[in-house]
Amino acid sequence: MSGQQNSVDAARLQEVLDGRWAHVRKAVRDGLGPDFVTVHGETGDEARSRISGLIRKIPIDVGVVDAFPAAYGGSGDPGGSVVAAEMLAQVDLSLMVKAGVHWGLFGGAVVALGTAKHHDKYLRDIMTVDLPGCFAMTETGHGSDVQQLRTTCEYDPATGTFDLHTPHEAARKDYIGNAAKDGRMAVVFAQLVTGGKRYGVHAWLVPIRDEHGNPMPGVTIGDAGAKAGLLGVDNGRISFDHVTVPRDMLLDRYGQVAPDGTYSSSIENDTRRFFTMLGTLVRGRVTVGGSALAATKSALTIAVRYGDARRQFTRPGDEREVLLNDYLAHQRKLLPALAATYAYTFAQEELVVTLADVQSGAGPVDEHRQRELESRAAGLKAMQTWHATRTIQMCREACGGAGYLAENRLPGLKADTDVFTTFEGDNTVLLQLVAKGLLTGYRDAFGSLDGWGRATFVAEQVREMVLERTAARSLIQRLVGAVPGRDEEVAVTDRGWHLKMFEDREKHLLEGAIRRLRAGASGKKDRPFDIFNDVQDHVLRTATAHIERITLEAFVAGIERAADPAAKALLSRLCDLYALSVIEADKGWFLEHGRLTPARSKAVTGVVNDLLRELRPQMRTLVDAFAVPDSWLNAAILREEAARQDATAAEDDAVRAAPAAVAQSLSRA
Amino acid sequence: MSGQQNSVDAARLQEVLDGRWAHVRKAVRDGLGPDFVTVHGETGDEARSRISGLIRKIPIDVGVVDAFPAAYGGSGDPGGSVVAAEMLAQVDLSLMVKAGVHWGLFGGAVVALGTAKHHDKYLRDIMTVDLPGCFAMTETGHGSDVQQLRTTCEYDPATGTFDLHTPHEAARKDYIGNAAKDGRMAVVFAQLVTGGKRYGVHAWLVPIRDEHGNPMPGVTIGDAGAKAGLLGVDNGRISFDHVTVPRDMLLDRYGQVAPDGTYSSSIENDTRRFFTMLGTLVRGRVTVGGSALAATKSALTIAVRYGDARRQFTRPGDEREVLLNDYLAHQRKLLPALAATYAYTFAQEELVVTLADVQSGAGPVDEHRQRELESRAAGLKAMQTWHATRTIQMCREACGGAGYLAENRLPGLKADTDVFTTFEGDNTVLLQLVAKGLLTGYRDAFGSLDGWGRATFVAEQVREMVLERTAARSLIQRLVGAVPGRDEEVAVTDRGWHLKMFEDREKHLLEGAIRRLRAGASGKKDRPFDIFNDVQDHVLRTATAHIERITLEAFVAGIERAADPAAKALLSRLCDLYALSVIEADKGWFLEHGRLTPARSKAVTGVVNDLLRELRPQMRTLVDAFAVPDSWLNAAILREEAARQDATAAEDDAVRAAPAAVAQSLSRA
Repeated sequence: MSGQQNSVDAARLQEVLDGRWAHVRKAVRDGLGPDFVTVHGETGDEARSRISGLIRKIPIDVGVVDAFPAAYGGSGDPGGSVVAAEMLAQVDLSLMVKAGVHWGLFGGAVVALGTAKHHDKYLRDIMTVDLPGCFAMTETGHGSDVQQLRTTCEYDPATGTFDLHTPHEAARKDYIGNAAKDGRMAVVFAQLVTGGKRYGVHAWLVPIRDEHGNPMPGVTIGDAGAKAGLLGVDNGRISFDHVTVPRDMLLDRYGQVAPDGTYSSSIENDTRRFFTMLGTLVRGRVTVGGSALAATKSALTIAVRYGDARRQFTRPGDEREVLLNDYLAHQRKLLPALAATYAYTFAQEELVVTLADVQSGAGPVDEHRQRELESRAAGLKAMQTWHATRTIQMCREACGGAGYLAENRLPGLKADTDVFTTFEGDNTVLLQLVAKGLLTGYRDAFGSLDGWGRATFVAEQVREMVLERTAARSLIQRLVGAVPGRDEEVAVTDRGWHLKMFEDREKHLLEGAIRRLRAGASGKKDRPFDIFNDVQDHVLRTATAHIERITLEAFVAGIERAADPAAKALLSRLCDLYALSVIEADKGWFLEHGRLTPARSKAVTGVVNDLLRELRPQMRTLVDAFAVPDSWLNAAILREEAARQDATAAEDDAVRAAPAAVAQSLSRA
Repeated sequence: MSGQQNSVDAARLQEVLDGRWAHVRKAVRDGLGPDFVTVHGETGDEARSRISGLIRKIPIDVGVVDAFPAAYGGSGDPGGSVVAAEMLAQVDLSLMVKAGVHWGLFGGAVVALGTAKHHDKYLRDIMTVDLPGCFAMTETGHGSDVQQLRTTCEYDPATGTFDLHTPHEAARKDYIGNAAKDGRMAVVFAQLVTGGKRYGVHAWLVPIRDEHGNPMPGVTIGDAGAKAGLLGVDNGRISFDHVTVPRDMLLDRYGQVAPDGTYSSSIENDTRRFFTMLGTLVRGRVTVGGSALAATKSALTIAVRYGDARRQFTRPGDEREVLLNDYLAHQRKLLPALAATYAYTFAQEELVVTLADVQSGAGPVDEHRQRELESRAAGLKAMQTWHATRTIQMCREACGGAGYLAENRLPGLKADTDVFTTFEGDNTVLLQLVAKGLLTGYRDAFGSLDGWGRATFVAEQVREMVLERTAARSLIQRLVGAVPGRDEEVAVTDRGWHLKMFEDREKHLLEGAIRRLRAGASGKKDRPFDIFNDVQDHVLRTATAHIERITLEAFVAGIERAADPAAKALLSRLCDLYALSVIEADKGWFLEHGRLTPARSKAVTGVVNDLLRELRPQMRTLVDAFAVPDSWLNAAILREEAARQDATAAEDDAVRAAPAAVAQSLSRA
């Protein structure tokens, strides 16, 4: 196996990873000029100014506006625009966020929530960045529970205009990207009121600055100030003091207000309408998950290449010191993270394919697939961003003091991606959403889900989703079906056994949650909040197990797409490591529930260590397949790799030239 | 229990936490002026300039130079200086590091490695910061393995001087604090050569800048540039091109060179001498561990207070939204981290007491206690700094988007403490050191430990350390002794059972490591590196289990020091949570090894959740007892707490004043 793997060509692996949007990845890798590189150690002002200029230099044809309708110069391919944004994230995360806010959130909202009159008037200027925009949803007081935004927008038939107003400090729009400096217009979310009646949250196009860059009358703009990272993004705060908004600035695809103030909508229920509107904006979450993963790949590339050059401590009988990557403890840090990064890459690809199918389909949107897309986008975003935070931290530590210097890129990757765990949806809230989707099919068993705060994103669906598979359904069923009844008879590396373990855990956790909710519902009828709160940890684990199962299935399906046998064999071993790392990390649960015997649990740890040894020679190939250009990595320790080899040679010469006693001392084991 | 706990006075808890050096803590809390506060969003230059000035404003009598000999104006109390540094860390981590480098590492090395002539000439100017200094040990190529430094310092009897030289790029001194801008003198570590023979690493006092701030002849100083954090510390790189150093600048307490070049030392073995020298510098590690904990307390204070004011999502039948701290998922994040922070506070206090006893004792240093001190300092530094990194990250996420803004302090705490995991010893290397200490007593079983790289810090001792207890020895033995043979007969909250579980795990892991090393030694005689590398993960877990056992014992001993019964009861519940959280997190191991039945394992999780509910009302008291002044926390979200209450009141008024339909919509569940 080892010999076979040594012949793996990184380019063959890369083909599998690049996937359906390989053309977009290539266009971004080839199409950006030398200005597109992270700059280290900038002040906030310098970073903002550079990024403001850089976004205008992005060649439109690399894919960033693929999601725009073809009639306006896009290609109508939302998948392409997600992948293009993910690639920008590898260049500079501020640039990705700035572009994501402008084209993705602002432009995306105009496309999805607006109608022809808005498209005709604004889309071309949005595409060219002649009309820089913001997405003003979050308020200081409401981020996770956006249905409860406090900003109001009330229609007055006498003037034919809306009155947009911030009622108090906690209702100001907060953390808004592109607001502090560049934004000219914003999509503003507020409670629509007409005829003295409220119809829930809607969105309006509102100019916030004039052509000289001064705030419009009644608009107050503040600066969110210094942040942990993303220095190039000008986050700000916006308040509205009874700002007049013309009637036709309401983005009215899902809700219309007639000149006389009559409200109409094809979706009667306010909550359902709101979540339908939100659902069209799912691309933001998919982009954040993908970008977190892109940054993780950069960090792993730096740490693995450093560990293949850096030596410390000698081994007996060897003059040279030991490479960091040869230590088991170092492999234990880097390789499972690498395996998980591959796993999420396949899960992300599958998610983007679903997004593209759902959003670019000609016919009406399939409600079922739309809900599934939203749930997986939420869950994968949470898992991928936490994976990024943990892995980048680990990579920075794996590079020692060098990992703390800005010139080695890791501090920037860490600081910039940190916010991903709480923006575009707080991760814990998102996992709760996933769990709620899984439980919705069982509402009969324990009554309504209303006790669960108001996270009613998927409340309208009543169906079972848990073991539905999108990826390689028949292959996976065949593998699971082939596992014998007694675990002891099957190898720890059997793929069917992995799949079955992930599947059993999810099922058992879900059934347990239902049982506990049912018991709670019968015992604590007067305290509906407590019924849900008491099982919150159980329910979040259910969501995690669900996403891990989906991720493993996507990995298994992805391996099938590898044409090259050596690449396929390597991916299969990496998939073993992913599956067994997850099982090992959660062995407490598997042992508690009789899914692992103590002996088999110890065997899992032994096999993980064997896999680390086996994959050690492939570490470099595995990161090379990420194909992050060196100029994007922009890490001094990588540029110094060659220099370090020279230095070591010089050192060896020094040993030879030194007095005998010195040489002996230097070279002793 | 709950009613009893509600009456806990934070001041009574604080007394227990403040411990033996309460007077130092009070002096720092009271003695620093209004300039002593973290500033957010500074540029690197601004931060460096501010901190350079601020260190000179620290009143000497608050404890920062307590470690200096009384004859030179100190109080000869190394414990006091560690605690004072830890308190500075709560004000500003750059200030702590700058002070720690100057007084602790530079000054500390002159005190510990120098002799009367050095003390007389330099200590007063060091105390007053008139002679700002650096500690130049780490090189680009050697950080963890400092015994292998490449800088040389060769004596020439003809001139009576040393020749200090950097032989190649990888031998330059790197990451050196206080070097890029302020340092005038450095303690430089290099290989001592005299009479053509090498005697291992020694230290010299070397002027690096003249009175105008220009580098001395032959000295090249570079800037390490922008870093992830600690912007106020001027880290630099120093190279020496055959710099002449007078003979009397050798810090010669442990090794002397006579005018004719004859070397002498009271410690014959080079390695042993080197580690004895290093051992005197253990205070740096103790300070870093304590400072990481101090920063963790600031972060927890911010997150807990925010979670007690911030509301999101409503509960059925309640108009007000739910406080974040009322969610089980939020308690699951904050409370176990709080419990561990208390546990480490007691372990740190015990460590500082040991340090004070060992370093300020009148007689000769007890070798055994010195080694134990070094081992615990290494292990606790690793565990505390990882705890800090994880906890501060969690706190930042628990504050949502607000946690990403510099004005809320968490980004600074996170970025500044990050380096602690790899400086003053890489955490993984330090844990290996701890394990090596534990295994040293068993060398007969598997031969020498030389295969294990050259981390021979504690190689000289041959003794068993594993179950030696320093804290409340008799109490703990009584508790453990009272546990019945069958676990099922003892409550999950029984303290003796907790202690026994921690103790059994450590013993079993250690015995397993010995067994595996012995098996390896008989099977792989020709590959000594592999013998150790194959069990590296097992050995690191042994070290972790050892430190966790010591930490629990320190917590148990600390509870006894609480005079107030309510405070004592609360600490005892918090100790339950610490012990059970650790057991729960490692339940895979306990189940694998028959220390937990599946039923009891599930019971542990149930009791942890019960404890969270029980401790929920005490969260605020628990952080108030950390007694971090609001001006030091310097977080906008805390200043806005009152404002937010006003805003909510305004919001409630708005609901009442709004049209009926709007009010109904706003207040519906």
